[in-house]
Amino acid sequence: MKKLINDPFDAVEEMVEGFCAAHGDLIRRVGRRSIARLDAPIQGKVGLVIGGGSGHLPLYTGYVGRGAADAAVIGNIFASPPAKPILEATLAANGGAGVVYVYGNYAGDVMNFDRAAGLAAQQGIRVMTVRGTDDVASAPPAEAGKRRGIAGAFLVLKAAAAAAEQRRDLDGVVAIAERANANTRSMGVALSSCTVPANGKPTFTLGEGEMEIGLGIHGEPGMRRGLIEPADLIVEEMVETILGDLDYSGSEVAVLVNGLGATPYEELYIIYRRVSQILAARRIPIRHRFVGEYATSLEMTGASVSLLRLDSELSACLAAPADCPMFKQH
Amino acid sequence: MKKLINDPFDAVEEMVEGFCAAHGDLIRRVGRRSIARLDAPIQGKVGLVIGGGSGHLPLYTGYVGRGAADAAVIGNIFASPPAKPILEATLAANGGAGVVYVYGNYAGDVMNFDRAAGLAAQQGIRVMTVRGTDDVASAPPAEAGKRRGIAGAFLVLKAAAAAAEQRRDLDGVVAIAERANANTRSMGVALSSCTVPANGKPTFTLGEGEMEIGLGIHGEPGMRRGLIEPADLIVEEMVETILGDLDYSGSEVAVLVNGLGATPYEELYIIYRRVSQILAARRIPIRHRFVGEYATSLEMTGASVSLLRLDSELSACLAAPADCPMFKQH
Repeated sequence: MKKLINDPFDAVEEMVEGFCAAHGDLIRRVGRRSIARLDAPIQGKVGLVIGGGSGHLPLYTGYVGRGAADAAVIGNIFASPPAKPILEATLAANGGAGVVYVYGNYAGDVMNFDRAAGLAAQQGIRVMTVRGTDDVASAPPAEAGKRRGIAGAFLVLKAAAAAAEQRRDLDGVVAIAERANANTRSMGVALSSCTVPANGKPTFTLGEGEMEIGLGIHGEPGMRRGLIEPADLIVEEMVETILGDLDYSGSEVAVLVNGLGATPYEELYIIYRRVSQILAARRIPIRHRFVGEYATSLEMTGASVSLLRLDSELSACLAAPADCPMFKQH
Repeated sequence: MKKLINDPFDAVEEMVEGFCAAHGDLIRRVGRRSIARLDAPIQGKVGLVIGGGSGHLPLYTGYVGRGAADAAVIGNIFASPPAKPILEATLAANGGAGVVYVYGNYAGDVMNFDRAAGLAAQQGIRVMTVRGTDDVASAPPAEAGKRRGIAGAFLVLKAAAAAAEQRRDLDGVVAIAERANANTRSMGVALSSCTVPANGKPTFTLGEGEMEIGLGIHGEPGMRRGLIEPADLIVEEMVETILGDLDYSGSEVAVLVNGLGATPYEELYIIYRRVSQILAARRIPIRHRFVGEYATSLEMTGASVSLLRLDSELSACLAAPADCPMFKQH
């Protein structure tokens, strides 16, 4: 295990300490595993709480700040945070207009966030939830509600955050977040595994020259394994699967090309090139594009492509400025 | 070789195409291997041209825009760009107030940028050069001029860009860039190699459980090899070497913790934590901090730490806003 860490069981604590030391101008720690933007809670604004397991930076911890979330909850590596820090984050984010939770659709997260929502309700805080379900590889269309959330969660939380900054009410923010999620599809490819520090061994193994299409960000099984193909072919398979799952014709889209950790930015731009060619041939205009590392899986090699079918409101939400530790937009 | 590319010999061309397709709102292509910010040349402003081999994104191609460079030159992977694209970038950046080149101190780059400067002079453009020499591991203090440039080049070009935006004259911009470079020291550690696509094999090999301290960003030899140590010990060795090379006492500093490609952001924050502890114990205040991937080596595993000894002018330059494809600051 080649990692720049100390005791593997201290990794998350030390990461949080370093993160808070680096970004004290934007965020503050509000609990052992929760942070909030400096000016939270903001009276009259819907509070946005995001979170999940660690190991996916910038997701979620990096997206707290103006134009982003009010608070984030930090689980252990690839493990849901318990209800207690979620409740701490909820209290830190609550400005009296209700709180919305945005997180990926994983059983542990669903259980713990729901539990925290119940505890918050006992304190008179109205909480609503939007779960990211963008990974088309994780369940067939008929069971779309069972799908996992991957990098598309960034687009959902970005839209929700902008709606909250506009002082929409709780129902309005939830409507934007739900529409962003309902119109987002993602698909990933992995070329190698990552290693959870406390495990010390790769989460899965892929043979020399082998890739897995549709693999989840914690190593959940994908759609198929095969020999690594040229990037253009891999991108075609991913984008065609996405376009086959949702009708994007007649709409502008936002494109997110996301690196899983070890894949160089140079390769992400090679992927974006092919995505843009495919969409141009389909006459689907690209309105917003994000190329970089937005939701990683530690040092996994691979990438994902997400497409969000835009309407004018969602487009304005994605374009709105943001200033948080790991995402800035003018 | 597990990469998301097509023909390895097309990788740079396809990367440039994808980059320009993604960032056409900020930059334009001005040659086969050169790009410029959309509004360049800016009359009366010193033009800043940066560049070098590919494989280091965001360095240099990602740093073209407002508050950053006017133009960048793009070499093949880990190979200097020839004089022709450097001249193209120079012409695109020239607003009549002279042009400054900022790049890392590598023999190929020195030869080609000097040649381009001569060609530009024949066209009446005054060009001055500042070479990044921040890597303390690459030569002893007595031969500091021979040192290589690594991630500290980001701090140098950021300062130079801000000075040029302030409409300082050519000598003034060069003075800021030289002072930034003279006050920056960096040191890196690698845990694994990267593979240049056209080579198909790792540039070097490190044994299981082995690391190399002071390794260069193209795999140049470092100061020592040894078994991987806890992150805190590695950071102590790097920071103590830097602090032993330049007297930072009595000054504020900027800290740059840079990932080389495959190292998770979580680990970069663990590194930042220890850097901030060491500097606090030495009573060296941290004024600016940058934690992320600023100068990579494809998918190399490892990180570097850079410290810039600030004065008030350099501090203001680093704090100035920037809006380019791969770095944004409010």
